[in-house]
Amino acid sequence: MGAPPVKRTSRDIRTANRYEVLRQIIAESPASRQELAAATGLSLATVATLVGELLGLGMITEVGFEESAGGRPRGLVTVDAAGGALIGVDLAETYVRAELFDLALNVLARAEEEVRPGESRPERVVHHVASAVGSVVERAGVASARVLGAGVSVPGQVDRATGVCAYAPSWDWHDVPLRDLLAERISHPLYLDNPLRACAVAELWCGAARGCGDAVVVNLGTGVGAGLVLGGGVHRGVSDSAGEWGHTTLVLDGRPCHCGARGCVEAYTGAPGIMLNLREVSPDSPMLRPGDQTATVDALARGVAAGDPVAVRVLEDTARYVGAGISGLVNLFNPEVVVLSGWVAAAFGEPLLDAVRGAVGRHALRRPLAAARIVLSPIPTDPVCLGAATFALEGALRTARKGSGTRAVSRARGTDAP
Amino acid sequence: MGAPPVKRTSRDIRTANRYEVLRQIIAESPASRQELAAATGLSLATVATLVGELLGLGMITEVGFEESAGGRPRGLVTVDAAGGALIGVDLAETYVRAELFDLALNVLARAEEEVRPGESRPERVVHHVASAVGSVVERAGVASARVLGAGVSVPGQVDRATGVCAYAPSWDWHDVPLRDLLAERISHPLYLDNPLRACAVAELWCGAARGCGDAVVVNLGTGVGAGLVLGGGVHRGVSDSAGEWGHTTLVLDGRPCHCGARGCVEAYTGAPGIMLNLREVSPDSPMLRPGDQTATVDALARGVAAGDPVAVRVLEDTARYVGAGISGLVNLFNPEVVVLSGWVAAAFGEPLLDAVRGAVGRHALRRPLAAARIVLSPIPTDPVCLGAATFALEGALRTARKGSGTRAVSRARGTDAP
Repeated sequence: MGAPPVKRTSRDIRTANRYEVLRQIIAESPASRQELAAATGLSLATVATLVGELLGLGMITEVGFEESAGGRPRGLVTVDAAGGALIGVDLAETYVRAELFDLALNVLARAEEEVRPGESRPERVVHHVASAVGSVVERAGVASARVLGAGVSVPGQVDRATGVCAYAPSWDWHDVPLRDLLAERISHPLYLDNPLRACAVAELWCGAARGCGDAVVVNLGTGVGAGLVLGGGVHRGVSDSAGEWGHTTLVLDGRPCHCGARGCVEAYTGAPGIMLNLREVSPDSPMLRPGDQTATVDALARGVAAGDPVAVRVLEDTARYVGAGISGLVNLFNPEVVVLSGWVAAAFGEPLLDAVRGAVGRHALRRPLAAARIVLSPIPTDPVCLGAATFALEGALRTARKGSGTRAVSRARGTDAP
Repeated sequence: MGAPPVKRTSRDIRTANRYEVLRQIIAESPASRQELAAATGLSLATVATLVGELLGLGMITEVGFEESAGGRPRGLVTVDAAGGALIGVDLAETYVRAELFDLALNVLARAEEEVRPGESRPERVVHHVASAVGSVVERAGVASARVLGAGVSVPGQVDRATGVCAYAPSWDWHDVPLRDLLAERISHPLYLDNPLRACAVAELWCGAARGCGDAVVVNLGTGVGAGLVLGGGVHRGVSDSAGEWGHTTLVLDGRPCHCGARGCVEAYTGAPGIMLNLREVSPDSPMLRPGDQTATVDALARGVAAGDPVAVRVLEDTARYVGAGISGLVNLFNPEVVVLSGWVAAAFGEPLLDAVRGAVGRHALRRPLAAARIVLSPIPTDPVCLGAATFALEGALRTARKGSGTRAVSRARGTDAP
């Protein structure tokens, strides 16, 4: 049977519980240990131990007491926003965006660089990432040693353990040792993964999947995919490439997709697919901006808001494709929540949500449908940067030993392997 | 956020590790603790503890020693086939099949009863189950107290914790308290679940998913579905209804499906869908046996073996639908293995496998495709009975306390909740 499977150990459980407690403290502070136990479902003794560890790491701090009915006053803790900094990098096909966060996951600084056509060599891309990371550290005015790590979302297939980018279609990268290249320029611990996972982790920590065991984060953008939260953690698959929902066949023998197959979900619901949907309804529509996905989607969204019948029809067609696809995810996973994320979902907003809910209601089976909420991502900033920063936070929590301080954490750098 | 999510505890991990060690002992006996540690990836200390527990439960036994190069002789253990008995019931739309297994998961006795049209009342169905269970215990000649439990696979939506059948389409059951009704007639601990999960668990314990973290068990029969093994365990979803892959849209606006939607995978790949595929190719084919799915599928399988061009064409069409659907599962989960199970897969065998592999190769993305083996189920007997018996085995391992004997296990009856 080859190598033995990867086992979950009691150490993994402790790490997952650490995530859960810190997540809850970030979401609702100040909090007593009793409140944390009630909110997380962990025992009070476990919570007390984990709170002690997080205090030891300097990530949270004591902020006084509250009276409890007939008992001793209860100690309250809150996240120590200044206890460390995290960097999240959204490395995309045409830009690099870096954001620096405090430990409460507030953005302290932002930087963006354009990646021009012709700059697809790894050295150029690495240059932009290093430059954006340097900028946010400088702008935020934090000491480099306080940065617990930098997460980088890469638009392709990344091996998390080795940091090698196996394939990035837009740049035609094959087996680029990206983490090693970045480490020559960036001294913080580096955590690489892809945008689907970044969006899923962002929802898990700060968004609509917080507290959920099973959730699906559907990413609607130029490409389309689904970040899977299963059993309270992100599902990655055996070769780190799970979540490619955009290439599920929706219309057998339908539109050609850039993946080589036909009729994929992405060919109808990605931004270029939405442009085709518009062309089918009204080939000469002034909303169609050839070669400019963003402008076309924005024009459609404005058209929907103004009640333009062509725009409304395109929204309905698109929602029908998205909804039929999401029904498959609801039937297959039976999740608690489906989150619509990505710039296309943000551009259309509520009207898309309403139409998708209607379409899912017509396609999905009754029992899993009854269990699943469908919502828009509530994350107000770039979820990819936030998710990437969260990779760094998870990395720091995973590698931190009980009782070691944040300085020790920030020195344990360079590898993401467990 | 409502109730806190269900947490994995260190007790869950210990249970999962118990499963893993016993699974390995059942698969390859006799085994030393060192071999078990190597095969499972667990530490020798953990294996030694778990082996001690299984010895205490009377499920395994010491069978001597093997020499080790330069060390002390190593103790060998094997499953104690006579250490207990398990019953697996495949409750289907038209029959009830019960099998009694020893702890090595060998079948010791079988019984089958027909469920006739008009016998859909819960009392009649319960009568048949109780009668089949009574028969196998009598035929195998085992003492009732030695039966660790009976697993029952129900063709519908079952709430595992309460044993209530929320919905069984063929019998128009709604919220039938099936476990309570069965418990009035059957004195063994009862574990209810559905056939998708039974097949998945059977592959995990004894078939092609053994040792896999992530696997998909595709069930091709009258209905179609997918049992999901994720992170080494069966994924059930928030309301126990995950796996309904048969109702993924494959051909938008395509054939009507009995679920009310159109173009579902099942409408093209379930046995009635295959009959339609045949009708499209050759409306007057003598292989078409109206009203008899089994005879039609058998005739097609014989036709393929004989090189009949109509049969070959129908197999290819069907494999194209199955393959496009499986590609979506491969892209989404990035599993290690996809297992083709169910009576339709068994009837067609290797020719279907070859054609499905070809279709998946044309549709799936390269990286997840490279990671996924596609195989026929290697389980030679009814996988639903085997899987149902395994629910009982897992139940006994879950509820058994360290050091308690099997008799104590068999008395801890009646509930399946953790």
